[in-house]
Amino acid sequence: MKTSVGVGLIGFGTVGSGVVKILLENAGLIQRRVGVPVQLIRIADLDVTRDRGVRLPDGMLTTDARQILTDPAIDIVIELIGGYDTAKRIILDAMAAGKQVVTANKALLALHGEDIFAAAVRHGVDLGFEASVGGGIPIIHALTEGLAANAIQSIYGIINGTSNYILSRMTHDKQGFEAVLAEAQRAGYAEADPTFDVAGVDSAHKLAILTNLAFGTPINFKDLYTEGITHITQHDIAYAWELGYTIKLLGIAKLVDGEIEARVHPTMIASSLPIARVEGVYNAIQLVGDAVGDVMLYGRGAGDLPAGSAVVSDVISLARNLLKGAVGRIPPASFQQNQRLPLRMRPIDEISSLYYLRFMVVDRPGVLAQIAGVLGQFDISISSMLQQGRRAGQTVSIVIKTHMARERDVQAALREINRMAFISAPAVLIRVEGKDE
Amino acid sequence: MKTSVGVGLIGFGTVGSGVVKILLENAGLIQRRVGVPVQLIRIADLDVTRDRGVRLPDGMLTTDARQILTDPAIDIVIELIGGYDTAKRIILDAMAAGKQVVTANKALLALHGEDIFAAAVRHGVDLGFEASVGGGIPIIHALTEGLAANAIQSIYGIINGTSNYILSRMTHDKQGFEAVLAEAQRAGYAEADPTFDVAGVDSAHKLAILTNLAFGTPINFKDLYTEGITHITQHDIAYAWELGYTIKLLGIAKLVDGEIEARVHPTMIASSLPIARVEGVYNAIQLVGDAVGDVMLYGRGAGDLPAGSAVVSDVISLARNLLKGAVGRIPPASFQQNQRLPLRMRPIDEISSLYYLRFMVVDRPGVLAQIAGVLGQFDISISSMLQQGRRAGQTVSIVIKTHMARERDVQAALREINRMAFISAPAVLIRVEGKDE
Repeated sequence: MKTSVGVGLIGFGTVGSGVVKILLENAGLIQRRVGVPVQLIRIADLDVTRDRGVRLPDGMLTTDARQILTDPAIDIVIELIGGYDTAKRIILDAMAAGKQVVTANKALLALHGEDIFAAAVRHGVDLGFEASVGGGIPIIHALTEGLAANAIQSIYGIINGTSNYILSRMTHDKQGFEAVLAEAQRAGYAEADPTFDVAGVDSAHKLAILTNLAFGTPINFKDLYTEGITHITQHDIAYAWELGYTIKLLGIAKLVDGEIEARVHPTMIASSLPIARVEGVYNAIQLVGDAVGDVMLYGRGAGDLPAGSAVVSDVISLARNLLKGAVGRIPPASFQQNQRLPLRMRPIDEISSLYYLRFMVVDRPGVLAQIAGVLGQFDISISSMLQQGRRAGQTVSIVIKTHMARERDVQAALREINRMAFISAPAVLIRVEGKDE
Repeated sequence: MKTSVGVGLIGFGTVGSGVVKILLENAGLIQRRVGVPVQLIRIADLDVTRDRGVRLPDGMLTTDARQILTDPAIDIVIELIGGYDTAKRIILDAMAAGKQVVTANKALLALHGEDIFAAAVRHGVDLGFEASVGGGIPIIHALTEGLAANAIQSIYGIINGTSNYILSRMTHDKQGFEAVLAEAQRAGYAEADPTFDVAGVDSAHKLAILTNLAFGTPINFKDLYTEGITHITQHDIAYAWELGYTIKLLGIAKLVDGEIEARVHPTMIASSLPIARVEGVYNAIQLVGDAVGDVMLYGRGAGDLPAGSAVVSDVISLARNLLKGAVGRIPPASFQQNQRLPLRMRPIDEISSLYYLRFMVVDRPGVLAQIAGVLGQFDISISSMLQQGRRAGQTVSIVIKTHMARERDVQAALREINRMAFISAPAVLIRVEGKDE
């Protein structure tokens, strides 16, 4: 029986500092749970001088990650350097050396997850990545353990705090995207280059991981449809509100007729739903299982301690496996590696959805009839319509909510309508999540 | 290596039927996760003739629970008969026979959990009880695994669907308790004898389990304060709304200065919080961990398939342990049995809270001053006050929200005020959850 579990950390940034704080401050608590001490042995980072606000024993810091990969006292390696090449090499080398691995690296898992899963199985080691999605929210454990009895039918979530903060502020303060983004950058809620967050790429990375685990299928990241929030305007937020909806950047994955829809885009959801109330930097993930029905998990999506909570909880899970000789108890992909079914990913033009469409038109008789006529030709039926006060000859908005329609048809109809003479700006399309009425 | 895991079910009622449906319909999925078949071997119930809407192989049903406890092909025994004596005997006998046990029996665990935990440790078997709290919501797995890095600071929840349904209807339909209860009984959302649900006892059972796991302390069920919803009126719901609050029946447990507060009572919570939006038969559990901050889990709190999801997810966890020889990987109480710290439970009169107080008074000059005077004498300060339109000589309501005050002081002040001549009915007290402003 092992009398302690040794941990090495590679990458001593924001999350790394949170991990170290938790491992040191909650050492007693962790031992009471695990049964033996879980000891932080060594930390590697290129910067060994910066003050991270934690007191470390002399000699714990090194600039050489090899010292962690080769130390026989280290059972579990935590990779928190981020990025692709170096991080991947470190993870694969750690596995080859028989170490258990914990990572928060969603970008790497989204693009190279299959290589890493296969390596974990090949080397007979565990891989923990709770921190890769939803910060401290225990969604990975829920998918792999607490809800394991379920065939998952759909999963969707607010999984990027920066975008959610911006949309929340736009909704409540009635400011435009650019103004709110600038303020978020000043407040530290958005990066200097916010592209990954506001263009939906970070959400897509996390959605790829959730989709993989939920449906037991490898994912080709390029097959995810990704659309960000940079084009969302006050107009659309206000119209959404009037129709009873709130606009959120959602990652959505559904199993439809044995195929997968996986897409990230601004989405209108009923304002009465709990998930519509998820504000600011919070994240939430909602799923539907065939047995459990709908479940939602909500919490802080980022930050040193919330993400550190997920990393250290993984360390505890892996330590428990080590102590019982139960490494491999749950395969990295939650399903047995040879029992995963590659499912076809539907391109975006094959999906069906409800749609919110806004047309900027020069107000004159017959305009609405022409728009409705084109929609009808493409088999798109209208469930509600809003038009601002008439102003003959001026530009006004016509807002239409559709019944369930096919994306391909909607895009074709919009192309045709956008060519019409009375159209003064390209139509705005926002997908609406919900049941057809 | 075992080539299959055998399951026996004792108790073929509502939840039992859900469990059987999931084990049969999702057998392929479960095998893809676990690696070997998880086979339902036998079901015991006193009623072996009623149609539960599932087709079973001949000979699977028996009236004799012993056949399950003594069958060497059965590795995991699921106890779903409920109640105390027989259920406890079955669980202890199954453990003595070396079987792993899964139960949904919250009443038994709340009152006899320590005996059962100790027996599991003594016999070296696992105990799963995810279904005992929050139906399909994976809160037990979250506490024991996904959030295991955290020292839990507080946990509170809407953990009784019947009470929540009644309060939701009272809030939205503006009907009284008795009318809504009668309707809930007709609709099957409340039992013929609803006492356990509306008096808060069922919530208290679940809170005892959550408190035990969250804080690593044995709980004496009698030390929990329990107050139900039968005295909640339309008046108070309307005043709460005006003050920005929603009334929910909450189970609340907090670690305060090394002691535990654990109490079930109607509680006013800010209407803007996601948990205030949890309606009808849904449950939600919110907790604060020292690392993760606040997390909420939301889902269906009861029903054959949601509760069945929790039971079968436990079966999967235990099957994974069996296959890896890792029984006992997580102790039943989540902490090592000899590492739990018995914490003192604070009696209700030692707690501090914000309070909503409603006084029915004969409206005449000086009444408010006298009430405020008594509150002041007991060190209770007022944060806001509402009074309906003046009607001299008539009975009117005075509503007061306090700053943080001690329960003992509030109760003493109310006793004094209730004796005053202008009081026409005993004061109403509802605790308010939130930060002092």
